[in-house]
Amino acid sequence: MSLPFPILLLLIFSTSSSFFITLAHCKIPRLGISPKMLTNEPDAPTQKLNDPNLKMFYFNQNLDHFTFTPKSYMTFQQRYAIDSKHWAGAKDNAPILAFLGEESSLDSDLSAIGFLRDNGPRLKALLVYIEHRYYGKTMPFGSAEEALKNASTLGYLNAAQALADYAAILLHVKEKYSTKHSPIIVIGGSYGGMLAAWFRLKYPHIALGALASSAPLLYFEDSRPKFGYYYIVTKVIKGTSERCYNMIRKSWKEIDRVAAKPNGLLILSKQFKTCAPLNGSFDIKDFLSTIYAEAVQYNRGPSYSVTNVCNAIDNNPPNRKKGLLDRIFAGAVALLGNQSCYDTNMFAHPTNNNKAWRWQTCSEIVMPVGYDKQDTMFPTTPFNMTSYIEGCKADYGVTPRPHWITTYFGIQDVKLILRKFGSNIIFSNGLADPYSVGGVLEDISDSVVAIKSNNGSHCQDIVMKRKGDPEWLVMQRDKEIKIIESWIATYQKDLRALNISI
Amino acid sequence: MSLPFPILLLLIFSTSSSFFITLAHCKIPRLGISPKMLTNEPDAPTQKLNDPNLKMFYFNQNLDHFTFTPKSYMTFQQRYAIDSKHWAGAKDNAPILAFLGEESSLDSDLSAIGFLRDNGPRLKALLVYIEHRYYGKTMPFGSAEEALKNASTLGYLNAAQALADYAAILLHVKEKYSTKHSPIIVIGGSYGGMLAAWFRLKYPHIALGALASSAPLLYFEDSRPKFGYYYIVTKVIKGTSERCYNMIRKSWKEIDRVAAKPNGLLILSKQFKTCAPLNGSFDIKDFLSTIYAEAVQYNRGPSYSVTNVCNAIDNNPPNRKKGLLDRIFAGAVALLGNQSCYDTNMFAHPTNNNKAWRWQTCSEIVMPVGYDKQDTMFPTTPFNMTSYIEGCKADYGVTPRPHWITTYFGIQDVKLILRKFGSNIIFSNGLADPYSVGGVLEDISDSVVAIKSNNGSHCQDIVMKRKGDPEWLVMQRDKEIKIIESWIATYQKDLRALNISI
Repeated sequence: MSLPFPILLLLIFSTSSSFFITLAHCKIPRLGISPKMLTNEPDAPTQKLNDPNLKMFYFNQNLDHFTFTPKSYMTFQQRYAIDSKHWAGAKDNAPILAFLGEESSLDSDLSAIGFLRDNGPRLKALLVYIEHRYYGKTMPFGSAEEALKNASTLGYLNAAQALADYAAILLHVKEKYSTKHSPIIVIGGSYGGMLAAWFRLKYPHIALGALASSAPLLYFEDSRPKFGYYYIVTKVIKGTSERCYNMIRKSWKEIDRVAAKPNGLLILSKQFKTCAPLNGSFDIKDFLSTIYAEAVQYNRGPSYSVTNVCNAIDNNPPNRKKGLLDRIFAGAVALLGNQSCYDTNMFAHPTNNNKAWRWQTCSEIVMPVGYDKQDTMFPTTPFNMTSYIEGCKADYGVTPRPHWITTYFGIQDVKLILRKFGSNIIFSNGLADPYSVGGVLEDISDSVVAIKSNNGSHCQDIVMKRKGDPEWLVMQRDKEIKIIESWIATYQKDLRALNISI
Repeated sequence: MSLPFPILLLLIFSTSSSFFITLAHCKIPRLGISPKMLTNEPDAPTQKLNDPNLKMFYFNQNLDHFTFTPKSYMTFQQRYAIDSKHWAGAKDNAPILAFLGEESSLDSDLSAIGFLRDNGPRLKALLVYIEHRYYGKTMPFGSAEEALKNASTLGYLNAAQALADYAAILLHVKEKYSTKHSPIIVIGGSYGGMLAAWFRLKYPHIALGALASSAPLLYFEDSRPKFGYYYIVTKVIKGTSERCYNMIRKSWKEIDRVAAKPNGLLILSKQFKTCAPLNGSFDIKDFLSTIYAEAVQYNRGPSYSVTNVCNAIDNNPPNRKKGLLDRIFAGAVALLGNQSCYDTNMFAHPTNNNKAWRWQTCSEIVMPVGYDKQDTMFPTTPFNMTSYIEGCKADYGVTPRPHWITTYFGIQDVKLILRKFGSNIIFSNGLADPYSVGGVLEDISDSVVAIKSNNGSHCQDIVMKRKGDPEWLVMQRDKEIKIIESWIATYQKDLRALNISI
């Protein structure tokens, strides 16, 4: 099995030198709801939720909804979970809250997501969680090994097919509970947030509304500045500590300087306690860049990761003479904890999740995220579509379709288009989340609305409530649920006005 | 090559006897914009339009938009035509009228459709006509023979793929004419009318609005009474002549009575001057049933077909004693003209169009049209989903997905769903069109509106203007174009308000 990002290595080999300080380009920062270092990977033992109200099911799902060839009739078992404890039932057309899974296993979603459980009793809602195809236990072709093998099997892993899966399961759930007119609210985060918004737009007859948390659905083609993601990473770190920002900014050159020495990579490897020898300074630079991105993306209580990383960089070691890279290393340790050695490739292990997501970014989820703004703590490395495409082609033998998302879902001129089309979508974003740069940040209409928080991190509103959550977060969640309640109330009124019963 | 409707024969063989007067069930009445007997079939030489302003193009289209397997990257040449004569150009963001082809060749659409040409100058619009995949010259897999061979090649022929084709071509046209913000209005009739409405709903970022003429998009699953189509056929004929209606109503039994005689089929064959020997009385009954349906569906000036057929049945031959079947035969002659013999299978010839459409009705366009109402001039033959599915399975080896259209497009509770979602759709229907029973006949919201005419036939509003068109038709078309103008005006205002330039 090749590494998930081989293109990355190739490119760096050909461009890195002591004259050019670059970072790996052609890599799309990870989406996802939880910090990677805390997420249960499907390869690891999954955390079973011991809630007896939560029941697991499998649905016999079509491999391909959009063709009718004999092969398209293959089916696979799609996993979903239901909690009906608080549901008021079909006779009241009581609502359904449906979580649309993103690029991770249902288990990790169940352990991270709080919005449904936290609001189920208040809304007397049926709670449904659906696993995304090709993640967790929802594997077409009988096994992850087969499903994730090559473009012939991976080809059925994409957003349109996933949305059609959700449509089929939600209609099935309604039938199962004999509740034709219960309104469904779909909820998702990150890539799953895009899916939630798109689901409301493509399947308005199934979902009454959507809560799209931290969905960077505008970060395609030229709709947003390509440097936006790392611009926000920089901004948050600079806002936390100017000193920290400055040290990080200077560190890249220092890394390259050390690497250029005789035995430089060995020195670097020792400096950063890497588990394996380094292939180049880019191994360290990419590792660090991902650490800063993750620290900012998931910067939230109780342990604010940016503060921790910057405290470590600013204050450690007390003896200043120990040097810049000692400080930088201390930052990494602050995030990852004390380890006997550090795996610089830890974010790109060929886990099933990473393999599946890498395919998605190499087929349609082509988000042009680069480092090409002066005001940044990162070395300038603009996104290069040509080499991105070439890398994907080399890996899979098929060419990405970077225009497909904008063709099918449409994102350009979102105000112009959605102001008079569509309804009932909440786009929630934390402005301290680097991916917020791809989010909808302004109200579009009365019911297609943007909810922002200055300090919010990626998907923070939909993860589980905690004691000690900041006031603004408590209020944001309350605002969201009140909007959803108003959609449901209007719908119930419409039902009565049209004299539609169960 | 098997007949396009073999199931029909099978079923009749097993059920028809002198005790049961039945009509072929499991047959969906033909959709389409022009009467079949007048339409240019793609196998016949097509009528070339000699308009020098109309330019033909081919677009390199993806075979499969919804998977990314190596096979999905196959491409085919999709034909479309452009008339830019009246277009005011990109600097004015002048509109584009786009005709979305249905189940026929571009040539026959170009010779039948008037709405674009008739309104192009008034709107200063660019006119675009697109041929539907698998029809006319738009054949994947290199040839009609390959494309229409079996489910493995036909599997890519469906509405979702066709809509994605239209999206890709329309974005391409905008790029070609460097006119990013020209509003596009999509127009279609019959099945193409469904496509137009669905296109606005699924691709609001590409089409500003849709005129869906005679689109029976509610005639799926149990959303409409299954007998509705033939109920209207009956009503129109009864309304034209009660005597005609009564004779048709009695004729079925008479046909079966004659067929049951020694040499009965020979007698019937002579009576109806059939070109080939009959396999059973159902050959004649199905032939006649289709004649009545076509006569009603396309009943319009200058030659009103229902009046002609009923005049012939009522008045001919002058000598009453010549019998009921002579009159019935005279009705058929009135529609089809004098021929040396009559091909009872004429509506089901295995033309490319019929083969492609038969596939569509056997995969997703499963409209449950039956004869099962007492108040009808047809023998009772309810729609039978089980045998319908079995027939399709026997033909293609794959099972129809009768729930797919309602899952993907959603049609149940159209008022409840679309009242607060979507905008800018005109559903136009003639209430004398049997397919109007599957149409949207009531306004849904301010901009999702129904335009009805009591006497209108199938797609009458979008076919070419003629001198002598009735006043109501002239007014209906004017109303439609005024609504479209108002959408465009609002859009242009929004563009300016948002300060969006070319």
